[in-house]
Amino acid sequence: MRAAVLGASGLVGQVFLRLLEGHPYFEVAAVASSPGKAGLDAAEAIDWILPGGPPGYLEGMRMSRPEPGALRAEGVELVFSALPSQAAAELEPALAREGFEVFSNSSNMRLDPDIPLVNGEVNPGHLALAKAQRERGWRGVVVKNPNCTTAILTLALKPIVDAAGLREVHVATMQAISGAGRRGVPGYGIVDNIIPHIPGEEGKVEAESRKILGSLRGGRLEPAAFSVAATTTRVPVLEGHLEVVYLKTARPMEPGEAVEALESYRGIPQELGLPTAPPKPLRVLRGEDRPQPRLDRAAGGGMTVSVGRVEAKEGGWLRMVVLGHNLVRGAAGAALLAAELWLRRGEWL
Amino acid sequence: MRAAVLGASGLVGQVFLRLLEGHPYFEVAAVASSPGKAGLDAAEAIDWILPGGPPGYLEGMRMSRPEPGALRAEGVELVFSALPSQAAAELEPALAREGFEVFSNSSNMRLDPDIPLVNGEVNPGHLALAKAQRERGWRGVVVKNPNCTTAILTLALKPIVDAAGLREVHVATMQAISGAGRRGVPGYGIVDNIIPHIPGEEGKVEAESRKILGSLRGGRLEPAAFSVAATTTRVPVLEGHLEVVYLKTARPMEPGEAVEALESYRGIPQELGLPTAPPKPLRVLRGEDRPQPRLDRAAGGGMTVSVGRVEAKEGGWLRMVVLGHNLVRGAAGAALLAAELWLRRGEWL
Amino acid sequence: MRAAVLGASGLVGQVFLRLLEGHPYFEVAAVASSPGKAGLDAAEAIDWILPGGPPGYLEGMRMSRPEPGALRAEGVELVFSALPSQAAAELEPALAREGFEVFSNSSNMRLDPDIPLVNGEVNPGHLALAKAQRERGWRGVVVKNPNCTTAILTLALKPIVDAAGLREVHVATMQAISGAGRRGVPGYGIVDNIIPHIPGEEGKVEAESRKILGSLRGGRLEPAAFSVAATTTRVPVLEGHLEVVYLKTARPMEPGEAVEALESYRGIPQELGLPTAPPKPLRVLRGEDRPQPRLDRAAGGGMTVSVGRVEAKEGGWLRMVVLGHNLVRGAAGAALLAAELWLRRGEWL
Amino acid sequence: MRAAVLGASGLVGQVFLRLLEGHPYFEVAAVASSPGKAGLDAAEAIDWILPGGPPGYLEGMRMSRPEPGALRAEGVELVFSALPSQAAAELEPALAREGFEVFSNSSNMRLDPDIPLVNGEVNPGHLALAKAQRERGWRGVVVKNPNCTTAILTLALKPIVDAAGLREVHVATMQAISGAGRRGVPGYGIVDNIIPHIPGEEGKVEAESRKILGSLRGGRLEPAAFSVAATTTRVPVLEGHLEVVYLKTARPMEPGEAVEALESYRGIPQELGLPTAPPKPLRVLRGEDRPQPRLDRAAGGGMTVSVGRVEAKEGGWLRMVVLGHNLVRGAAGAALLAAELWLRRGEWL
Repeated sequence: MRAAVLGASGLVGQVFLRLLEGHPYFEVAAVASSPGKAGLDAAEAIDWILPGGPPGYLEGMRMSRPEPGALRAEGVELVFSALPSQAAAELEPALAREGFEVFSNSSNMRLDPDIPLVNGEVNPGHLALAKAQRERGWRGVVVKNPNCTTAILTLALKPIVDAAGLREVHVATMQAISGAGRRGVPGYGIVDNIIPHIPGEEGKVEAESRKILGSLRGGRLEPAAFSVAATTTRVPVLEGHLEVVYLKTARPMEPGEAVEALESYRGIPQELGLPTAPPKPLRVLRGEDRPQPRLDRAAGGGMTVSVGRVEAKEGGWLRMVVLGHNLVRGAAGAALLAAELWLRRGEWL
Repeated sequence: MRAAVLGASGLVGQVFLRLLEGHPYFEVAAVASSPGKAGLDAAEAIDWILPGGPPGYLEGMRMSRPEPGALRAEGVELVFSALPSQAAAELEPALAREGFEVFSNSSNMRLDPDIPLVNGEVNPGHLALAKAQRERGWRGVVVKNPNCTTAILTLALKPIVDAAGLREVHVATMQAISGAGRRGVPGYGIVDNIIPHIPGEEGKVEAESRKILGSLRGGRLEPAAFSVAATTTRVPVLEGHLEVVYLKTARPMEPGEAVEALESYRGIPQELGLPTAPPKPLRVLRGEDRPQPRLDRAAGGGMTVSVGRVEAKEGGWLRMVVLGHNLVRGAAGAALLAAELWLRRGEWL
Repeated sequence: MRAAVLGASGLVGQVFLRLLEGHPYFEVAAVASSPGKAGLDAAEAIDWILPGGPPGYLEGMRMSRPEPGALRAEGVELVFSALPSQAAAELEPALAREGFEVFSNSSNMRLDPDIPLVNGEVNPGHLALAKAQRERGWRGVVVKNPNCTTAILTLALKPIVDAAGLREVHVATMQAISGAGRRGVPGYGIVDNIIPHIPGEEGKVEAESRKILGSLRGGRLEPAAFSVAATTTRVPVLEGHLEVVYLKTARPMEPGEAVEALESYRGIPQELGLPTAPPKPLRVLRGEDRPQPRLDRAAGGGMTVSVGRVEAKEGGWLRMVVLGHNLVRGAAGAALLAAELWLRRGEWL
Repeated sequence: MRAAVLGASGLVGQVFLRLLEGHPYFEVAAVASSPGKAGLDAAEAIDWILPGGPPGYLEGMRMSRPEPGALRAEGVELVFSALPSQAAAELEPALAREGFEVFSNSSNMRLDPDIPLVNGEVNPGHLALAKAQRERGWRGVVVKNPNCTTAILTLALKPIVDAAGLREVHVATMQAISGAGRRGVPGYGIVDNIIPHIPGEEGKVEAESRKILGSLRGGRLEPAAFSVAATTTRVPVLEGHLEVVYLKTARPMEPGEAVEALESYRGIPQELGLPTAPPKPLRVLRGEDRPQPRLDRAAGGGMTVSVGRVEAKEGGWLRMVVLGHNLVRGAAGAALLAAELWLRRGEWL
């Protein structure tokens, strides 16, 4: 299936390009960034900033214009979008109208009732919401993956919710610099420092968590009822978001039971053996000084979320420390997994 | 008054030495580190690692032997201790027995019922507990300052406790490397990383907070009744502990009321105008990206705790982000302030 | 004397503002940044990013429009400029034409033959070049301070040049993030990394060094004749440029002689006791692991350059490691010192 | 061939263990660290600190006692040593006496005339020196790899030496924290800092470079005659040593010629297609902001050295910036490559 990557010169775009190297379902037929780069040599126009250099297939490719006609001309059917929100808000609906299937990491439309906000192992069934998009006059679809922090958090919450229900969550995050994009956090502001605020992030975590863990009832999504309080901070770490999570379950749950639920959890991506699905979506680390961003972010190719320090705390709270790769599980990898689920929806949805 | 600094070559010891430069009450008459350094030139034996170099008064001094007789010979009456816990556990009782007044940052004995655990503006009255130390056969006293995280936390909690009572606290900390001493955290483990565990720290925060915010009743200390859950992590920051705090008050409290209580708070150190007391023990920052360790840790000479992001969160929780200098408010500065309070106890206790 | 600070919201601008707090010669009568900020409250418009917060005198001030008329209206006579080069290239000549005395950190015009490029202790006499500026039709003057790396380097070279002459210099720098301004180096590019290139920097070091260490002959400047090779890199350090210097003197020089020359060096700023002149422009550190940016950058209020590891190397080379504060000695402090020299030129020039 | 890894719990030891996973020539039959760990479960005793966790083959293994008998009992014939120098100085000769073939990263004996100091692509022929070890009464051999900085430097110098001869080298290094081992550099000393001194390192670079680039004449090694001046510093980078190199060739060499020589260089490891030999030992990067440690250290699995900024500088100097992975090319990888060369010496030596 011929795919395009939009926003290809940003960090998430580059991770998309790397994850798509040698992908069994998708072939990168077009890459685009800002309109001004259209026509340029792709390997040059994308100023590559990940270790290892650009994937070989970019050689000889030229940047496409980010618009339906240009993509159509390349035979593209499916689009991965890492566009800035504003550009996405204009382009993505246009693409869906023209019949493209859009899997997007951008934050626009995430809370719209007919837009699936999908974290592969957590709520694949929400893809069914996309049917209602026909009412928008779209021949294609738009599917979103969650905000990075939420993707990591909801995966760790899912087995707990299933086993014991959830009443309340407190989370304090320590988020990597790369979450703000390649130039989002000035070096002078973050070396020997923490910035205890990420614009808009806390509201996203609070609203998206409830949508993702909500239930489909008669084709409509009912958000989960637990309360969420998030505090999000930026720390001098390159990749990997760490989250300190306190939670109160609906029925009491021992730490050992939570560990068991987390470790044994498997989702539809694992059942289907999807290319981007890690063997284990969650792993529980026993060392009490784990998970650590540098040691654990790459687990499962960046798709496995690591959990540690699962303990009972005063007042009936369960505490755990959760870590995931913000650019993979929290962005490009989650979108790719959603696309794989969509492609094979006939088998399970 | 002639004072000694023990553990002088460590980070906290060096901060003691600097804070005591030109101090109106205390003159540094002796400095000691490990017994093996006794007799060496002080300025050389203390391998200085703070910017600015060692205070001038060290020139010409020699390291003392860390034992009562040697300190007595220098005319020392009061001792500031930054000893490692094990050394402190042996030496401090011996010093108190011999009549020295010991103000110590070491963690031993902090929870003993007759040992004042004092955070100057929060619980100066607990100094009265020291009377009971005579029953140990001590002619002197031992006074402790809290663990760094707890010193910062309890100062920020105190005005809230006074105004609205406290039921429950959740805290997730991001602690500076210097909290583990000059060689406590290997560089290879902390660059581009977070270590989500500090041995023994969470228990300290939980127990010490309740002791410090507890009440003296008939000469005995009754710990405060609120529940505390702490998660402590180490981040790549040199100085300044940041703490994300969620709290539930006994009676509902609006963020604005909390801000007002924090900003207007003054303690006995401010009333007495003590040398180490900052004009304002607490300040509330309005910028939503504050407090930040690098910008705010030095406020009030490191003695002022900065608070930001005071907001109401779902479920009736109040959230704030708290920052303090771990080596000053969280260690040497707190001990020094306690000593100043003690010296002038005739005026207020 | 009423002074203005242009480019006040940048890093160098903020250092200017701090150094001018309580200055005995200059009063800050106007601050300006981009024209769009004119009229705004100064303390708010300048998003302060240095520890300690903005100087108190900014309270109540409003941002001026960066143009001669507006500055004249505030009674300004002397201007400190931290403007970006392009803006400086337009505005500074206009200001000089209108009679303002401009002391500028911007890189434009630095190599013009009638523009003094002054490092206070090194080449104060070059201020005499400014007379020739009348031929440009200027009633005022423009004086430049060197590029940060060059200011630090030439100060360390000056005593060597005086004592033994100089044939050749090799320098490899490790420059702090702040040298690129508050947003110049993205955090994602510099944590756990080095960027071995700073656009335009190597040419500046090579050309400016020879101008600064050159000689005035009959009112014209003859650049020094030694050869310079510079390699400039960016490292994850906040402030303080470290420079590894290999040099070959005209006549052989023992390391001990070089140390002696460096330590005993004093310039006209020291003779005049200028407010921004440090007691010692250079200090030689004996510890073989010094100078270090974090420990030594603030020496002499950031105006003293620290030198260490002075050793003879194979092939007749002298090696030394040099460190200076890039924002003070390398920028605002150097400009301020030049202005102080200018103000008192009647006494010595 | 059954091999042992000594010093297995250190950083270099862990890199040995990883590089040996699935190695076609060697099977890890024993791992040892300090004697006190003998008998412990290997996967637990080695506190793994590299991303990705310990190789699977360690499961079920027990730590061996680091002595000839214990290794013999495991059928070990060849030993990779990452021991601290002092332990190595005792154990390695004993192992060689007993017939083991020892490939060692430790610095002891490196300059002994009968000890090959081998950087695979640079001086494989020096392995012939080992014959003379029989005169020590050894049945086995000891082969050393160079100090990390030197391994990287000499590889980049080799094509230049071959093409144009070498008179003089100046190098200023920026070395990664991991070069000092897992606990060698305290975090408090290196965040926001540079330490401009690495004990003993400069002398090693100077002496080892000449030995490695020296010539065998009648079975004896004649060191190369060029002069070397090294300045070595520690920077806040996890892995990858960057080296600023100025060099003067015996006959003039244009940068373009140097680039050509570097890029086309191949050694015996490439001819033999050895498992640890990268396809290209050297690569020249065109981007003027390269090489960068984080982007380029992993090239060729850490065995390729990256070169950039090849330029002619004043005074007839050639300048280049060189980067290599200190733990792979600079340590374990170099030792492994030497062992592979040794094993197949019949084909080429």
